[in-house]
Amino acid sequence: MIKITFPDGHTQEFPEGVTGLEIARSIHPGLAKKALAITVNEEVWDLTRPVHEDAVIRIHTWDDKEGKHTFWHSSAHLMAEALESLYPGIKFGIGPAIDNGFYYDVDPGDGVVITEDQLPRIEQKMKELARQKNKYQRKVVSKEEALEFFKSKGDEYKVELINELTDQEITFYTQGNFTDLCRGPHLPNTEPIKAIKLLNVAGAYWRGDENRKQLTRIYGITFPKQSMLGEYLLWLEEAKKRDHRRIGKELELFTFSQRVGQGLPLWLPKGAQLRERLENYLKEIQKDFGYEPVITPHIGQKELYVTSGHYEKYGKDSFQPIKTPVKGEEFLLKPMNCPHHCEIYRSKPHTYKELPIRYAEFGTVYRYEQSGELHGLTRVRGFTQDDAHIFCRPDQLKDEFIKVIDIVFLIFNKLHFENFTAQISLRDRKEKEKFIGSDENWDKAEKAIIEACEEKGLKTKTVPGEAAFYGPKLDFMVKDALGREWQLGTIQVDYNLPERFDLEYIGADDKRYRPVMIHRAPFGSMERFVAVLIEHTAGKFPLWLAPDQVIILPISEKYNDYAKKVLNFLNNSDIRTLIDDRNEKIGKKIRDNELKKIPYLLIVGEKEETSGTVSIRRQGKGNLGSMKTNEFVRFLKEKIEKENE
Amino acid sequence: MIKITFPDGHTQEFPEGVTGLEIARSIHPGLAKKALAITVNEEVWDLTRPVHEDAVIRIHTWDDKEGKHTFWHSSAHLMAEALESLYPGIKFGIGPAIDNGFYYDVDPGDGVVITEDQLPRIEQKMKELARQKNKYQRKVVSKEEALEFFKSKGDEYKVELINELTDQEITFYTQGNFTDLCRGPHLPNTEPIKAIKLLNVAGAYWRGDENRKQLTRIYGITFPKQSMLGEYLLWLEEAKKRDHRRIGKELELFTFSQRVGQGLPLWLPKGAQLRERLENYLKEIQKDFGYEPVITPHIGQKELYVTSGHYEKYGKDSFQPIKTPVKGEEFLLKPMNCPHHCEIYRSKPHTYKELPIRYAEFGTVYRYEQSGELHGLTRVRGFTQDDAHIFCRPDQLKDEFIKVIDIVFLIFNKLHFENFTAQISLRDRKEKEKFIGSDENWDKAEKAIIEACEEKGLKTKTVPGEAAFYGPKLDFMVKDALGREWQLGTIQVDYNLPERFDLEYIGADDKRYRPVMIHRAPFGSMERFVAVLIEHTAGKFPLWLAPDQVIILPISEKYNDYAKKVLNFLNNSDIRTLIDDRNEKIGKKIRDNELKKIPYLLIVGEKEETSGTVSIRRQGKGNLGSMKTNEFVRFLKEKIEKENE
Repeated sequence: MIKITFPDGHTQEFPEGVTGLEIARSIHPGLAKKALAITVNEEVWDLTRPVHEDAVIRIHTWDDKEGKHTFWHSSAHLMAEALESLYPGIKFGIGPAIDNGFYYDVDPGDGVVITEDQLPRIEQKMKELARQKNKYQRKVVSKEEALEFFKSKGDEYKVELINELTDQEITFYTQGNFTDLCRGPHLPNTEPIKAIKLLNVAGAYWRGDENRKQLTRIYGITFPKQSMLGEYLLWLEEAKKRDHRRIGKELELFTFSQRVGQGLPLWLPKGAQLRERLENYLKEIQKDFGYEPVITPHIGQKELYVTSGHYEKYGKDSFQPIKTPVKGEEFLLKPMNCPHHCEIYRSKPHTYKELPIRYAEFGTVYRYEQSGELHGLTRVRGFTQDDAHIFCRPDQLKDEFIKVIDIVFLIFNKLHFENFTAQISLRDRKEKEKFIGSDENWDKAEKAIIEACEEKGLKTKTVPGEAAFYGPKLDFMVKDALGREWQLGTIQVDYNLPERFDLEYIGADDKRYRPVMIHRAPFGSMERFVAVLIEHTAGKFPLWLAPDQVIILPISEKYNDYAKKVLNFLNNSDIRTLIDDRNEKIGKKIRDNELKKIPYLLIVGEKEETSGTVSIRRQGKGNLGSMKTNEFVRFLKEKIEKENE
Repeated sequence: MIKITFPDGHTQEFPEGVTGLEIARSIHPGLAKKALAITVNEEVWDLTRPVHEDAVIRIHTWDDKEGKHTFWHSSAHLMAEALESLYPGIKFGIGPAIDNGFYYDVDPGDGVVITEDQLPRIEQKMKELARQKNKYQRKVVSKEEALEFFKSKGDEYKVELINELTDQEITFYTQGNFTDLCRGPHLPNTEPIKAIKLLNVAGAYWRGDENRKQLTRIYGITFPKQSMLGEYLLWLEEAKKRDHRRIGKELELFTFSQRVGQGLPLWLPKGAQLRERLENYLKEIQKDFGYEPVITPHIGQKELYVTSGHYEKYGKDSFQPIKTPVKGEEFLLKPMNCPHHCEIYRSKPHTYKELPIRYAEFGTVYRYEQSGELHGLTRVRGFTQDDAHIFCRPDQLKDEFIKVIDIVFLIFNKLHFENFTAQISLRDRKEKEKFIGSDENWDKAEKAIIEACEEKGLKTKTVPGEAAFYGPKLDFMVKDALGREWQLGTIQVDYNLPERFDLEYIGADDKRYRPVMIHRAPFGSMERFVAVLIEHTAGKFPLWLAPDQVIILPISEKYNDYAKKVLNFLNNSDIRTLIDDRNEKIGKKIRDNELKKIPYLLIVGEKEETSGTVSIRRQGKGNLGSMKTNEFVRFLKEKIEKENE
């Protein structure tokens, strides 16, 4: 008999060789039906694999990440089986589960091209195979056997992977007529895979190396129920509509240029103004919280980053050093603002009375990302952090943390991110050598963060071992209107840079002390924040932030003059207003302009001109009746004021 | 006989071989006494050199640049003579006249060091030699003779210079015991050099090449009258006091860091806020003038600058390309914002109705300067242009020029630069091949600029041949409070970039046309402008701009509480206020704080606390009596409002 310990801590004896499926069934037959995988001593296993030792277990269903992951991983194998039956001789790279579904990188052979219009056929085949309820069978093989199998099959990609394996145990999984090199785990059989959708086809270099062959990557997703797929596809549709790249283009917020370079956004006037509004909003808050603005250059001598340690750690993978016509000087694009701010702190002596000192800068930094990693404004090569560095005494840490949390709350509240949590990342106490700074300081800082979060009633998850090597940190995650999680702001304690830059303050006892440094960026970066805000609001920004607040639609050209009078009055009242004086029918004007996501549409014709009024439509919501123009201005100002309360 | 034409156009016959001195004497003996040099057919000559042909002449005195230049050039030779007599074997590099005085680069020989405390002795010797009234004698020599002379003297620097000469005529000048290789011109003799001051000693690499020997550069200045030297030294004293590097440090506006790199300013909080105030002021103006803000990255692919032509023209002398870990990509730090703005213009099609489009950006650019050229904020390697690019139709050029001039006027007026002129730089009509763009376009643009300046009543100087190759331009020069001239804002027409970037708009006739581009920066750069503003105001900024507007000085610690109440009241009223609550005598507090250039000092003691008042001192001007605190706020707000009218 072996002892099985359940997540709630209770234990039960089972015969040696019991499987996850049997354990699940012993709890409840319903659970056995829902079960997809099992964690055995911190490893996720097939439900059919026998357990031979005492174990701590957790059974996974569709409701947890591991369950979904297993489901999609098995689906990737199912797709591979379908592909092999439809494209004999096809070779396989890797085929993992991802956040939403799975993919497989394949090489269909010379001259064979798999395009998106072939996906339905593959889906069909998968459904057919799934209905066969074939078992996923695990088999341990030797390296020689493994090589032999794929060599004879002629799959050089798998051969390359096997040659590099250092695993003690190599395993194959077979379902139906398809066998794959795989660590698992998998479903017991294909039966649960009821709803299947292949999503798209893309190119992907073998092993991400652009000098090697480009394979065909096929993305798909599967569900245990058809209705779930339906919901997912609707959600996907909505997510596509909200794609910030699409909305950014439609609303003319930003653009990219091949010649300027990928991942380097150009902010168009409406986007630049929106960003400036966000920056000014934070600047005002920061002023109230005692921050002082500084401005630093976008490059620094290599020596600066040798001092900070960044060069050693990231130099090779970064934009390379900038040489000058005269030898002996080398500069780097700044990947962060902290070394510059440390140099400002060093520019004069400080006493304990002056602390905390808070230097704030909307600092644009540059970090090299592979072109395949780039994505709209969320993954770029140049971005502007709403950065600040707080230099404080250790006894001020908690207070400063609370104040930064207050700023984050203000911002999330203002921008309607109601659904957010925070992750506290602590050091791993078992591997203290990985973290710099004294035990005492770490204890103090970790306690300060935990207490600050408690005092602010922040919903947190604590993860030991996830701290930066230089200090513990707190990261904010928001859920957007579609339930997607985004990491935004961050607050990090740093014992490393004050040491490396030899920063000091004179204490009350006239002795020298090291200040503690806090890095913080409540938005994270302007680029990423604006991207998330676009996806969250679908481009329908709060009134105070909207690029344009009002558009005036004259019913016909006869009323253009009156419309222009209204336009001037509104613009002079600091309401950002446009006019659509095209010679088009009013119905078309309304339809066209509803798409622009401008909050208010004012329709003016004879009635309005005669009475000095405007007819008001709220974008997406329809008619609000009419008002005198100055009443409308007051109405709007009140709305904006309310947003700013 | 030859015909001499005077500046006023009248002509007179003189015997062939007449000298400048004789011509001057023929006009008036007094002029002969004041004369220092003569321009003969556009070349500046010695007064004693015979004129053999008809010539257009102009006689130079101390009152013009050429006169001073000749005076100082002769003084450099005088210093060399003194040096040779005091340091036998000394070798000479070059010794030119400069804007204020002259210098000579010398190699006093191994082991010999000339330090500043030796300057009086050299001055003494110069005075002694000057009193000898030695003539400056010009002699034409062959290259061989010239080489022979300096080889036998052992002066390898002069030998190197002679070897590289391509002049048809090589000339020596001799006064007293000193002979130099020199193109001249010089004074007739040393007599006019009455007042002499050697200013300082610095190191300078031979030919500016840091791989070659470092020579000793001795700076000096001379005058025809002792009183002029006295005035100059007083002026110099005042200029030193106003040195923006010194004031920038005292007022904690900016700093530099060895580790960040020379020429890369770090803006400290007070400087960053001052700069932001200037930027916001210009942003408001630009909004009223229909500019749209954009934001672009600080790097661009090399291709961008190949397209713009900057790479070919400046690439070698610039910060070198930035490579990436993956091959095939190269970026450059942006030396200007225009290529990025062109790419924004290109991001969508435009029609004639949309023009002019005005993209504005406070864009930070990076240009490599040799370290010896760097100077405070006026010559840096990274600076922020208050840049904008106007894309307009040719028929809009003049209007746009007028509008930009209006902006410049607003700024100069606001910042009390009453004394300014502008230079119109046109193309050289004889060398049209040097300038790109059609004749018709140039004519139009030049006419537009000239007319715009006339309409605005701008004092201008027109200089043909000084246009950029891509278009004519208008540069603004301001005189500061010490009478020094600074180049600030610029407006430039550009036909080149629209061509290179293939920019277009659709005309009313549905055909494609090229827009004209205007580059403009009224401040020039934030760094340079702030530097000039500091030197102009001696750090006493206008109230609206001052880093701190008020400082409160409690008479003793007993009144610190009341002082803090006043402090809060003022800060809450948006008056930037500090407190000096040190435990010091009020006399000392006043003296210390007068130096900080904060416009208002408020003294508070028992009387003030009892009556709810403050005693007011205007910095540098003394007592203004007392006021209720809220009255003082109103008083100050009115002052600021008046500045903003």
